[in-house]
Amino acid sequence: MNNERIEHLLRTHPRAAETSATTREHAATLAALLECLLACNACADACLAEEHVSRLRRCIRTDLDCADVCAATVRVISRQTETPGELLHQQLHACIIACQTCADECELHRDMHEHCRLCAKACRHCQELCNRLLGELSAAGTVPANPLESPSLS
Amino acid sequence: MNNERIEHLLRTHPRAAETSATTREHAATLAALLECLLACNACADACLAEEHVSRLRRCIRTDLDCADVCAATVRVISRQTETPGELLHQQLHACIIACQTCADECELHRDMHEHCRLCAKACRHCQELCNRLLGELSAAGTVPANPLESPSLS
Amino acid sequence: MNNERIEHLLRTHPRAAETSATTREHAATLAALLECLLACNACADACLAEEHVSRLRRCIRTDLDCADVCAATVRVISRQTETPGELLHQQLHACIIACQTCADECELHRDMHEHCRLCAKACRHCQELCNRLLGELSAAGTVPANPLESPSLS
Amino acid sequence: MNNERIEHLLRTHPRAAETSATTREHAATLAALLECLLACNACADACLAEEHVSRLRRCIRTDLDCADVCAATVRVISRQTETPGELLHQQLHACIIACQTCADECELHRDMHEHCRLCAKACRHCQELCNRLLGELSAAGTVPANPLESPSLS
Repeated sequence: MNNERIEHLLRTHPRAAETSATTREHAATLAALLECLLACNACADACLAEEHVSRLRRCIRTDLDCADVCAATVRVISRQTETPGELLHQQLHACIIACQTCADECELHRDMHEHCRLCAKACRHCQELCNRLLGELSAAGTVPANPLESPSLS
Repeated sequence: MNNERIEHLLRTHPRAAETSATTREHAATLAALLECLLACNACADACLAEEHVSRLRRCIRTDLDCADVCAATVRVISRQTETPGELLHQQLHACIIACQTCADECELHRDMHEHCRLCAKACRHCQELCNRLLGELSAAGTVPANPLESPSLS
Repeated sequence: MNNERIEHLLRTHPRAAETSATTREHAATLAALLECLLACNACADACLAEEHVSRLRRCIRTDLDCADVCAATVRVISRQTETPGELLHQQLHACIIACQTCADECELHRDMHEHCRLCAKACRHCQELCNRLLGELSAAGTVPANPLESPSLS
Repeated sequence: MNNERIEHLLRTHPRAAETSATTREHAATLAALLECLLACNACADACLAEEHVSRLRRCIRTDLDCADVCAATVRVISRQTETPGELLHQQLHACIIACQTCADECELHRDMHEHCRLCAKACRHCQELCNRLLGELSAAGTVPANPLESPSLS
């Protein structure tokens, strides 16, 4: 699914973001998230089938975590009705860390396993787009400028 | 994420399907599933924001069900290690019904809501590809030829 | 979360099932599904940390599949608005196969690994409750009496 | 599924946390997360069936978000192999915000809708347990003491 089709889909929402730029940013991030979750699931399963699976325990673990966090992020980001800004911010932040953690681990095995190389690439791209979207949303005031300094933890 | 990239990803698995045709079929189905789950999530949320949301209750319900079933199907299909044939068959079957149900409902609103039209299209495409993959797998003997006639329900 | 609390929750729905028996059956099935998905996730991860992980590849695979299918089934079953009968039937059927497949595999390792024994038990219990709910729904006419003989696959 | 059974399950992991207290904390949090995700899914669907669904748009939105974030958190927390501390921290943090946001919204409708009252209660309980676990992990040094001040966003 290419970015243009996702962008077209998002624009059909009755409360679609007013500026084209924001919707384009969302669409690109969703495409990256879907690719990342698929790459992580496939990499975890490929690692499981490798002869030296015992050396890939951490890789499988971070793959599965990243796939799960990306899946939740896709769902949250694909909604445009009454978006709760702080949650959007925090979920994007968790996703950035998940992608970064998984990319760091997969890169250790990229010369041995092509699936790790592809997965690291997908994670790194997703991390960048989530990071950029977070920046856009903060600049636009959609999410708190810096909620990390004042978390309202109950 | 286009089909070629998904196919390349699947081929890096140590036990990738031997024939190119099967992997291509899997890749096309995964792409359709990812597009369908995104379209369903976006459509459910867009319906929720419509003025006449009360007339779209069934549409939101079938959208959410379809998104959930597609998400599980993506995960099952993206694995190639020790694939359990009968589960693959049954999950594909459930997914076909989910897509069909959602497409039927969304088509009722396609002239009113562009998101319903796009969602119906994505569901119909996904239904077709799941159906085709099911046929391929049955022909290849990967899944039981006709497990539906002899379900082993314990 | 015990069955009584889930049942109470389901009864607060404006269109809750009219008979107490049906709601009780749903609540028990939801409790079993939640326990099963947790046991499967935990067992997959425990297998991954075992010294002889290479002998547990199929167990990890079936654990992950079962967890994913149960998660989708929880979501579909927890909804009571405009329930599409045939989808409910097929998803329950897929879930029964997922639980059965995983229980069969985990039972092979139950004497070696306590997590496999617990997981097999949770899967078997879930399989039974999904099977019973399927029977109840068929008897009540909520789902097609025997859709398996006439699948409408497109 | 009660806390004792979840705790027993977690203890069967080859690398289970050494102290009983930590495992007990994890088990209680998992139980709260499972209850919360079910309550949120059920509340979203019950709101959808209410006569005045148009007044419950934000409630449905926050319910769905919270269910999705809790589901990802369950998966991440249920793993004990090679746990990446910072991701655990960030996902717990996102979950706390999701629960808080949903509880705040549901409490606005608690006098009108019993499902909103039950959902708010489940969210608030889950928020507290996630918050407590975050505190325990920070104190134990399992997660960074205060990663929020130095996010490594690439």
